[in-house]
Order: sequence, then C-alpha cells, then structure tokens
Amino acid sequence: MKIVVLGGDGFCGWPASLHLSDLGHDVIIVDNLSRRRIDEELGASSLTPIRSIEERVEAWREVSGHQLRFVELDVAQDYDGLVALLADERPDSLVHFAEQRAAPYSMKSPGHKRYTVDNNTNATHNVLCALVDAGLDTHVVHLGTMGVYGYGTAGMKIPEGYLDVEVRLDEPAEGTVSQQMLYPTNPGSIYHLTKCLDQQLFAYYAKNDALRITDLHQGIIWGTHTDQTLRDERLVNRFDYDGDYGTVLNRFLMQAAVGYPLTVHGTGGQTRAFIHIRDMVRCVQIALENPPSRGDRVKIFNQMTQTHRVRDLAELVARISGATVELVPNPRHEAAENDLHVSNDTFLDLGLEPTLLEEGLLVEVEDVARRYADRVDLDKIPCTSVWTKEQQPGVPVSRTPAGQKTA
Amino acid sequence: MKIVVLGGDGFCGWPASLHLSDLGHDVIIVDNLSRRRIDEELGASSLTPIRSIEERVEAWREVSGHQLRFVELDVAQDYDGLVALLADERPDSLVHFAEQRAAPYSMKSPGHKRYTVDNNTNATHNVLCALVDAGLDTHVVHLGTMGVYGYGTAGMKIPEGYLDVEVRLDEPAEGTVSQQMLYPTNPGSIYHLTKCLDQQLFAYYAKNDALRITDLHQGIIWGTHTDQTLRDERLVNRFDYDGDYGTVLNRFLMQAAVGYPLTVHGTGGQTRAFIHIRDMVRCVQIALENPPSRGDRVKIFNQMTQTHRVRDLAELVARISGATVELVPNPRHEAAENDLHVSNDTFLDLGLEPTLLEEGLLVEVEDVARRYADRVDLDKIPCTSVWTKEQQPGVPVSRTPAGQKTA
Ligand SMILES: NC(=O)c1ccc[n+]([C@@H]2O[C@H](COP(=O)([O-])OP(=O)(O)OC[C@H]3O[C@@H](n4cnc5c(N)ncnc54)[C@H](O)[C@@H]3O)[C@@H](O)[C@H]2O)c1
Ligand SMILES: NC(=O)c1ccc[n+]([C@@H]2O[C@H](COP(=O)([O-])OP(=O)(O)OC[C@H]3O[C@@H](n4cnc5c(N)ncnc54)[C@H](O)[C@@H]3O)[C@@H](O)[C@H]2O)c1
Repeated sequence: MKIVVLGGDGFCGWPASLHLSDLGHDVIIVDNLSRRRIDEELGASSLTPIRSIEERVEAWREVSGHQLRFVELDVAQDYDGLVALLADERPDSLVHFAEQRAAPYSMKSPGHKRYTVDNNTNATHNVLCALVDAGLDTHVVHLGTMGVYGYGTAGMKIPEGYLDVEVRLDEPAEGTVSQQMLYPTNPGSIYHLTKCLDQQLFAYYAKNDALRITDLHQGIIWGTHTDQTLRDERLVNRFDYDGDYGTVLNRFLMQAAVGYPLTVHGTGGQTRAFIHIRDMVRCVQIALENPPSRGDRVKIFNQMTQTHRVRDLAELVARISGATVELVPNPRHEAAENDLHVSNDTFLDLGLEPTLLEEGLLVEVEDVARRYADRVDLDKIPCTSVWTKEQQPGVPVSRTPAGQKTA
Repeated sequence: MKIVVLGGDGFCGWPASLHLSDLGHDVIIVDNLSRRRIDEELGASSLTPIRSIEERVEAWREVSGHQLRFVELDVAQDYDGLVALLADERPDSLVHFAEQRAAPYSMKSPGHKRYTVDNNTNATHNVLCALVDAGLDTHVVHLGTMGVYGYGTAGMKIPEGYLDVEVRLDEPAEGTVSQQMLYPTNPGSIYHLTKCLDQQLFAYYAKNDALRITDLHQGIIWGTHTDQTLRDERLVNRFDYDGDYGTVLNRFLMQAAVGYPLTVHGTGGQTRAFIHIRDMVRCVQIALENPPSRGDRVKIFNQMTQTHRVRDLAELVARISGATVELVPNPRHEAAENDLHVSNDTFLDLGLEPTLLEEGLLVEVEDVARRYADRVDLDKIPCTSVWTKEQQPGVPVSRTPAGQKTA
C-alpha cells in the first residue's frame, strides 16, 4: 500500500516507517522536525546519536534498497500543503504520529500548554478535514494513549475504547437499557487531554463523513531498537532520557547505566501500561491490515502488553543493574496509588506476540544505555515541569547542592 | 461583582451585559468584533439596525447611568492581552460567549470548519490557561449547547450534564457499580463538536487547577428584545435571519413577516430545546449567583425551557401569521425524526419563570419581524451550507428560478 506517516521522524514514527517500508509498502514521511527543535529549546538531546532525516533516508536506501520519501510540512499549520499532498498521492493509509507527546513538556508553562493544545488539535483536525476535502477514503491510524482512560474503576478491566453501561429510564418508561459509549475520559495532563479531544474529532468525522479511523490507545513505550534500526548505525532511533521527554522505564535504564539513582515519583504506586517498541511497529502494521469498513464507528485497540507498578519497575531495574532507588517529590498532580487492568485481546487475537519486560530489559541496559552513557547530561535528568504551583520538581536529594555526590 | 463578558457584542452577550450592568455589576465587554466581519463576509446583516459597540456603550450610559467598558481583543489569538487584562482587573466572574456559534457556518467549507475548531478551542483554552497563569479564582460561566447531547435515548430524560450508569465488574470481582459520568456526546456539526471539546477542557481545569466553572447547556434562543435593549433604539439587539446564523424560530418569524414560505428541513421531525432571550439573561445571572466551590467538578445546567418539534413550530407560526409552510431538502446530515426529553430542574428550582412560546410569539412577529421587514434580503434566507457532498441546500422550490414568485 501507499502509506503517509505523519511524524515519521520521531521516536515511534521512524521505526514504524522503516518497518512498513521493509514490508514493501510505499512510505512517505511527513514531519516538520519540531521535535528536533524542542531538543534545542530544552538543551537536551537523544542519548543515541540520531542522524538528520536526509541521512536516515539515504542510509535506508543503501541498506534496504527501499526509497522512503520525506516531505517537511507542518500538519497543524500548512493545511493547503497537506491537502495538496494528499490529493496528489491519494494514499491508501495514513499513520498519524504528528503531535507534541510529552506530558511534562505540556505542563511546563502557559506557552507550552497552549502550544500542545493548538498543535495537536489542529494537526488532527486538519488531517480529517483534508481527507474529506480531497474526497479520499484513506484509512487513518492514530496513535492515542492509554492515558485517556481514567485508570478505571477498581474491579473493572478497561475495555478497548467503548464501555458497556446500563442506563435507567425515566417515567413513564421503566427499567434500564444497555448502551455502549466511549469510555469516559480522565486525562492526567494537558498532553493527555489533547488525545481526549482527538477522540471526539474522530468520532465526529467517522459519523458525519464516514471516514475510516483506527485509534490506538498506546501504553508507554520502552526499548529503542527494532530489527530495521539495528541494520546500520545511521538508522539508530532516538532515546529520550530528559525530565520532559524521557519515559519512565527508559529513564530507569539510563539512570542505572550512568550510576544515577532511579528517581521514583512519590511512592511509585502508579500503575501504568507498557509496550516494547518492536511490538508497537507490529501493532501499527496489524492495525493497517485490519481497517474498519466505511460507515463503521472508530475502531479502538488498546496497544499495550503489560502493566507494572512504577516502584516494582524501579526495583526490577535496580536488581538487574545494582542501581539504587530514590523516592523524589511527584511533580504531577495525580493519585499516589492506582490499579490498572486492561483488555488487549484484539491485538493478541490478531497475532501479536508480546516482548515481555523480563526478556528485554537486560539487553536494553547493555546495548543502549551503557553503550551511549558518555553522551548523558546529568543536569537534564530531573523532572522540573510541575503540574500546579503546589507541586515540586522531582529532584533527588542526593543530587541537590546540599546532598551532591562528589564527582 | 466585577464581570468580564467575552463576546459581549453578540446576540446573547449584548443583552446579558446590559442585564448584568442594570443589576449594578461592573461589566467589561471583550470582543474582537469578528461576528460583524462575518456579516460582511456573508453579505448578510442583522434584520434590526444594530449600532457600533461604541454607540451602544454610550447610549447605555445615557439611558442607565451605568458605564460599560469595552476592550477589543481576540481571545483565541491575543493570549498576552488576555492575561494582562485579567491580571489587572481581577474579575470575580467571567462569562464566555466568545465563540463561532453557527452550525451551518461551521460546515460551509474546509476553511470554515478549521476556523471554528481553531477559534473556539483556543478561545476556551486561553481563558482557562490565563486564569491559572494569573492565579485567579474567577468563576467562569460558559455558554454551551444542548447539542452536545446525542438527543438521548428513547424513554430517557437528558440529565444536567452527568449521567448515572451501572458498570459491570470483571472477574474476579462481581456485580455492578454505580457511576456518574459526563453525558456521552454526539454532536451534530463541527460547531457542536467544539462545545464537546470545551467540555473536556473544563473538566480538566476543574480537576487539575480547581477552577470554578459552570457550563450552561443552552437551547436555541428565540426572541430579540430584553427589558434593557428596549429602552433605546440604539440599544437594539441583533436579529439574524440568514441561512447560516438565523436560528429556526426567528427565521420562521421573519419569513412569516415578509411573506416567504416557512422553510422546514426534511420532514421537520427534529425536536429541539428552546429558551427565550429574556430567560437566557436571567439564567446567566442565576448561574453567576450560584457558583460551584473550589475543587468541585464543573456545574452543568440545562438552560432551556421547552422542547418543540420543528414542523409543529412552523404550523404554529403559520396559524398565527397566515404564512404557508414548505418542506425543503435538509442540508444537515441528521436523523429525520427524534424525541427529546430534558431535565431543567436546577434553573426552575433557583427561581426561573419561563417565557412560554404561546405568550411571546405574536409580540415578536409584530415588534421585530414586521417592523424591520423592509431590511430583509430574500436571497440570504436559504440554508446553502451542506453537511456532506450528498446533502442539498434548503432552497424552497417556490423560490427557484423555475418556481419563482412574481414580485
Ligand atoms: N513514546 C511513547 O511512549 C508514546 C506512548 C503513547 C502514545 N504515544 C504517541 O505516539 C505518537 C508518537 O510519539 P513519539 O514518542 O514518536 O513522539 P516524538 O515527539 O518522538 O514524535 C512525534 C513527531 O511528530 C512531529 N510533529 C509534531 N507536530 C507536528 C506537526 N504539527 N507537523 C508535522 N510533524 C509534527 C515531530 O517533529 C516528531 O518527529 C504521539 O502522538 C504520541 O502521543 C507515544
Ligand atoms: N444563539 C443561540 O441560539 C445559542 C444557542 C445555544 C448556545 N449559544 C452559545 O452562546 C454563545 C453566544 O452566542 P450568540 O448567539 O450570542 O453568538 P454571536 O456570534 O452573536 O456572539 C458571539 C460573540 O463573540 C465574539 N467572538 C467570537 N470569537 C471571538 C474571539 N476569538 N475573541 C473575541 N470575541 C470573539 C463575536 O464577535 C460575537 O460578538 C455562543 O458560544 C453560542 O455557542 C447560542
């Protein structure tokens, strides 16, 4: 198929593009390179030495013989460019990764909140509006987040997007009716909120314009390499470890590798859903191969394979690596402890074979975190973006001026 | 109290500002005058001869002795101006009318869809972000719409914002739990969709930042004058009758006055919720006097007093006025027939005494529609904005070139 990958220069979009290209699909990457500019803004950079998009594309051609195309375009701002591209290319499918995706970054300041809402809402809306405008029946696969769910009710498994409920009828009618509705949202940050807005946009365009849309409610990604990114050092994927973009498990791995305490927010009682990056690329493939029919409601898959409590993860990494664990203030405004049970039957039924944490962790510590450890900037590790004025940054006491380690 | 009224030059915002000023509140109107520019874009104008905002403010000062202040500012685009204003004025309350509010206009073209999403989402988000930024505990009263509800389930009364449901638990737990959740949305246009996005923004800021927010799910307004706008011709409120901005009942009144057939879309089986403009200004007052407490969830009131089926309304107006009724194609993509039962106990309990259709209709036909009938541009009456390429404009056959009436 011909596939447009929006955000194809990013952490998920790059390996997904390579995987789809490797399968023989015609892949067009669209990205405005904003993520690279945010690296500059934050003075942080990928632990792995990622190459320019041009060098990446050229390396992949050399290694695989497949030609990726790259178009630099802002999906949120250059609507005319987007429509022209879609109308010209008439892609069978479009994978939409092109959003600001870090919760802490989205809470950093009023400007960051506003950028995240504006960029993500307009990016998603432009895509939907442009497909209708160009009269296309392109299947849209969007990367959403498990974080749209409110972490559920104790004793309930979070379903795949839609919740079965019973509603009581009023006089003069009697009894109850069964209904299915979008699972009620309870986002934990401005970033997560934008994914709840996306859901509403998708539901509307599926209903009014019969667009075919799949929304992947993805867990937190861990891991770095895929079969394709390993084929040449120039294809290496990004690895974010800074306090804004680094995701919890990859941060622990890096902290272990550089002898920094594993920073656990609050009591570490938060339970989260995870998925390895190799499974993510397979899931995107499976979703593309199983589109909804025209007129169907939005298809929602939970794209995760395991849930873990954060403090258990820290202890596991500590055990493997010999690192220490340190509890730090939680910069987020969230429940200290939560349970999480998630249904992910769709992907398992469609053949996904999960990479489990127990298998993959050690490899990641060795192949990525230790290998590139000399590139780390320790000052970028603490989470300094706070959710409200009442919260404090997640800085370990052992690293504050008073408790600073001697070098 | 000191009250900022965003969108205070509009159809609802102007009479609400006068009503609040008349009660002795210190009212600051903020508006970017975009609605007046849209009149120019559409080549349509208010049936009533509305004056410039400066003339309005001056007339009100002469008539009432109260000084309104007016600030020209784009709430969606001039964030810095908005924060500065709020930080300076530290208002007790803010009423937010400043959105693009016409469903047909929001469906007119890709550009109109995008403008509506961008303007409304950023306007609402800027307000919330700015209040947190400025550290204010201002009570926000937002004008939402009954159209966020999916017109409900047969046999069920639409509750005020939150739905009681029973959710079944999964193994190993047993039985069901009762929950209350935001009523699931089912918007009928891009405009209505933006009000669903607003709901999510409100829920988030109430939770994360303890903002105090009331969301008024308002029915379709009918009527034009309030006690205050009647005090001087220069205070006259706008009356939209064109195919994009005119709301159904006011359009029927105007059609009756000028001898145009009452254009009923489809079978006219759509049931909608209504409220008179005098009751709207009272409701806004009541909402301001009954704010939620800090930390409460968003307070949601259904701001409507009666429901009517569109064809029944047309027949009622025809009976009063002698006009004819004509069925035209429905430009909207919507159910041909629906029931609607709505709970509006909160406002009734707080003392609202509804103006019923039966009492007010005749006055409106005489005092507004006939009085200004010579200002009408008949070409602006048909609804030409269509929901999808499959829909047709709502043009009466009797007015097409073939069936055109002789003058
Ligand atoms: N990384 C995770 O753990 C994770 C978990 C759940 C969901 N997701 C979702 O997956 C998607 C991709 O995440 P990621 O980790 O690859 O993020 P990323 O920031 O590495 O990649 C996003 C890419 O989109 C681009 N982009 C952003 N806005 C754009 C715009 N307006 N126009 C064009 N390009 C734009 C960026 O330049 C970047 O290359 C996101 O939507 C994210 O919400 C990621
Ligand atoms: N009129 C109705 O029947 C009705 C029914 C339900 C809900 N509502 C809601 O009530 C509110 C007011 O409706 P109305 O009928 O008075 O509409 P209107 O268009 O007459 O008034 C809206 C006002 O807001 C201003 N505005 C729009 N965007 C702005 C921005 N970015 N910055 C500053 N000002 C901006 C416009 O210039 C206009 O004066 C809307 O939010 C609408 O959704 C109206």
